[in-house]
Amino acid sequence: MSLGSAHPKELRERIRRGEWRRPTAGCASGYVQANLVILPRDLAYDFLLFTHRNPKPCPLLEVTDPGSREPVRVAPGADLRTDLPRYRVYRDGVLAEEATDLLSLWRDDLVAFLLGCSFTFEAALLKAEVPVRHLEEGRNVSMYITTLPCAPAGVFEGPLVVSMRPIPPEKVARAAAVTARFPAVHGAPVHVGSPEALGIRDLGRPDFGDPVSIRPGEVPVFWACGVTPQAVAMAVKPPLMITHAPGHMFVTDLRDEALAVL
Amino acid sequence: MSLGSAHPKELRERIRRGEWRRPTAGCASGYVQANLVILPRDLAYDFLLFTHRNPKPCPLLEVTDPGSREPVRVAPGADLRTDLPRYRVYRDGVLAEEATDLLSLWRDDLVAFLLGCSFTFEAALLKAEVPVRHLEEGRNVSMYITTLPCAPAGVFEGPLVVSMRPIPPEKVARAAAVTARFPAVHGAPVHVGSPEALGIRDLGRPDFGDPVSIRPGEVPVFWACGVTPQAVAMAVKPPLMITHAPGHMFVTDLRDEALAVL
Repeated sequence: MSLGSAHPKELRERIRRGEWRRPTAGCASGYVQANLVILPRDLAYDFLLFTHRNPKPCPLLEVTDPGSREPVRVAPGADLRTDLPRYRVYRDGVLAEEATDLLSLWRDDLVAFLLGCSFTFEAALLKAEVPVRHLEEGRNVSMYITTLPCAPAGVFEGPLVVSMRPIPPEKVARAAAVTARFPAVHGAPVHVGSPEALGIRDLGRPDFGDPVSIRPGEVPVFWACGVTPQAVAMAVKPPLMITHAPGHMFVTDLRDEALAVL
Repeated sequence: MSLGSAHPKELRERIRRGEWRRPTAGCASGYVQANLVILPRDLAYDFLLFTHRNPKPCPLLEVTDPGSREPVRVAPGADLRTDLPRYRVYRDGVLAEEATDLLSLWRDDLVAFLLGCSFTFEAALLKAEVPVRHLEEGRNVSMYITTLPCAPAGVFEGPLVVSMRPIPPEKVARAAAVTARFPAVHGAPVHVGSPEALGIRDLGRPDFGDPVSIRPGEVPVFWACGVTPQAVAMAVKPPLMITHAPGHMFVTDLRDEALAVL
């Protein structure tokens, strides 16, 4: 079953009915996908400031009003408690559980942050004939916790997480140019080649997602990743933080081209 | 005395010594200028969210930590209490006083927001041979409170304020293209022609700044303006809000081209 040509509304309905529990890469192609971070209101200012100071890993699409489950700007009518395939619940910085909905966990003081996801620009990469290996191989994208620190804000601090796509050397420049047009979904790569410089020891053992094949001569290209807040949660240990499960994104009604800069 | 070729550090020092109390348009050409909004910490979350929801009038460059007078990211070493030519103090939504420094008003719970200013892209307009009338006439830019509402956030809501530059018709497209490269300082115009559609009755009577000459055939072009928070303050009436005086900006150490998108 592929949902590549589904409208986001149809995709979200199928997810809500429990018919799609897998990563959303390639789903509803051409529409903006988003990372989810849910925090109690008393941590919301520090996290909002964290997103402003770290726009590459945390490009902010929408912030809901406290208690509201509906992202009225990017997907009116959607319900953030049910419309993602899989969630993660962190308590005191520890992954306490995974869940397929948040109906029993929801509280009136929760604020949801939606951050652009790099799955969004993969349709643009494919159109530009840049291969996207994890789509070819039917896997989740490879993600790594780096040794680069984010800019701290209030209680929030921690390492940058990156996603990696192996790119043929003659297409690296094109991949950079194509993705630079989409700053709202992480934009241009933060790093090209040299995983050691990011503190990554083994590309075959990602911290999140799946490993993918890297063919001879291909260059690992790294983009800032919206899983960064999950690494930050592990470092900061807030009492409660709910996120999407890596790769299992919220799909918005925004067209990707509507977010392109030029 | 013109300070067009001064380095921002030199300009800020002269302002601090009381040697420049005039608008900063044309000063330290090529460097990013910023609007200032200072609020108590308990209003900071709502205002930070307001800037996110209204990126055209409120493109956020930096938020200081509570009590800090130094914008460490955009102008290390500067002091926001003394380095602007003129300030406005709003109490309960009323302009209570103008001040040339904030030394006696400063408090440990104050948070400063710096928002990009359209003066920044005027050097780029001039380079592209687009005339900037208020610079030609040695006046402050014309600013108007419109009837368009901003997106509300928490307690903050109110009308959009725009700046206006009259542009010869054959150069309007170029003015739009040049400024679109600078979203961090308001970016492309929000409106071209037709002041009535914005609820502006008389271009000769701006709400802030000075009137400028409009020559026969010239088109009024409107950009979102960082004075918007001052109109919002008048609508929302927070107990205390301190801003720059219109046109009297904070000049950062950032080069304008460093903020250009492509």
